[in-house]
Amino acid sequence: VTAPLRLGRPPGQGERTREAVLRIAVDVASAEGLEGLTIGRLAAAAELSKSGLFARFGSKQELQLATVEAARHIFVDEVVKPALAVERGLARLAALYERWLAYAEARVFRGGCFFAAAAAEFDGRPGPVRDRVAAANREWLTALERAVREAQSAGHLDGKLEPAQLVFEVNALVMAANQHFQLYGDRHAFKRARAAIAARLDHARKAAATKRS
Amino acid sequence: VTAPLRLGRPPGQGERTREAVLRIAVDVASAEGLEGLTIGRLAAAAELSKSGLFARFGSKQELQLATVEAARHIFVDEVVKPALAVERGLARLAALYERWLAYAEARVFRGGCFFAAAAAEFDGRPGPVRDRVAAANREWLTALERAVREAQSAGHLDGKLEPAQLVFEVNALVMAANQHFQLYGDRHAFKRARAAIAARLDHARKAAATKRS
Repeated sequence: VTAPLRLGRPPGQGERTREAVLRIAVDVASAEGLEGLTIGRLAAAAELSKSGLFARFGSKQELQLATVEAARHIFVDEVVKPALAVERGLARLAALYERWLAYAEARVFRGGCFFAAAAAEFDGRPGPVRDRVAAANREWLTALERAVREAQSAGHLDGKLEPAQLVFEVNALVMAANQHFQLYGDRHAFKRARAAIAARLDHARKAAATKRS
Repeated sequence: VTAPLRLGRPPGQGERTREAVLRIAVDVASAEGLEGLTIGRLAAAAELSKSGLFARFGSKQELQLATVEAARHIFVDEVVKPALAVERGLARLAALYERWLAYAEARVFRGGCFFAAAAAEFDGRPGPVRDRVAAANREWLTALERAVREAQSAGHLDGKLEPAQLVFEVNALVMAANQHFQLYGDRHAFKRARAAIAARLDHARKAAATKRS
């Protein structure tokens, strides 16, 4: 229903405005929730007229869906794409979760990870917004699983490990770091997540080394 | 500001009504968010008059705070107290996270764990509600940390482990199970969390055994 951001070609004036407005929408939603992101709230935050935003987005739900899509593009550009430039295997897997942790730690958005907030907010509210949020979260887990399988093929990780299990654990730790930082202002949580993931991967690596010898 | 539920003595009629209404409030808030829990929304869900609920709770914020307190009491009664009846050490630690997982898995509340939802919702919204949610979450982490220290004293777990680190990891895994179940309907996530925690504790146990020998 909502036109995707066309990131492949240089954006025109209207698209630049749209991107800028949606970046503000992601920021507001990360802290105050996606359900609280009304056209009126966004108009106040972006210092634009309500009528202009109504013309642009049509309805609150379209605004919510466009915001999820914008957050997804930002996440892909900032976390996923740079990690895909790193060599396949353990290095790429590490780049994926490291970039995610660094992004959460830098608090690019006021409320931390947009998707962590949106997932918790919409998991009990069936509908198109929840479906889009769930699909975007799945994409992230799928990218991690692919990286685990590549690390297994490269002999970096134990081939007997179930990728989905390892990804469940790694994702749990990075999400918990974001949550602790947001809720308690506890920056040390990122260190805890890194230590736990390193120990987990070290264990999976040793098993691979034992198998080879 | 809000009178706590007096669970120690038999409740009178008014208190029973209050408990029943707040249980509905916890259920609504677990799925639709604590910010969406207006007096009007609760009146509709509980089939009571708005004026009666206004007389009882005074304001939306007082209702929110009373709901957090009610959720805390339910959590203590259902998860923490039964685990404290189990022998100190690894068995009590296991009882704590097992009861939590079973509770989330039984979907006692429509939106899963109330505190997981409320923490994600309020972590970016400073104020008394966020402070109460954060304090209740801290209580849970503190109970887990105490159980880890007791398991260390009993020689069940490596004494060199930092309790806060182990608790960060265990809590991350149980929260992730709740999240996966809520977002994807994936009941298998509870099995993943159990397997990961068992492996983590097994590792911490082996280190303790090695030290003793």
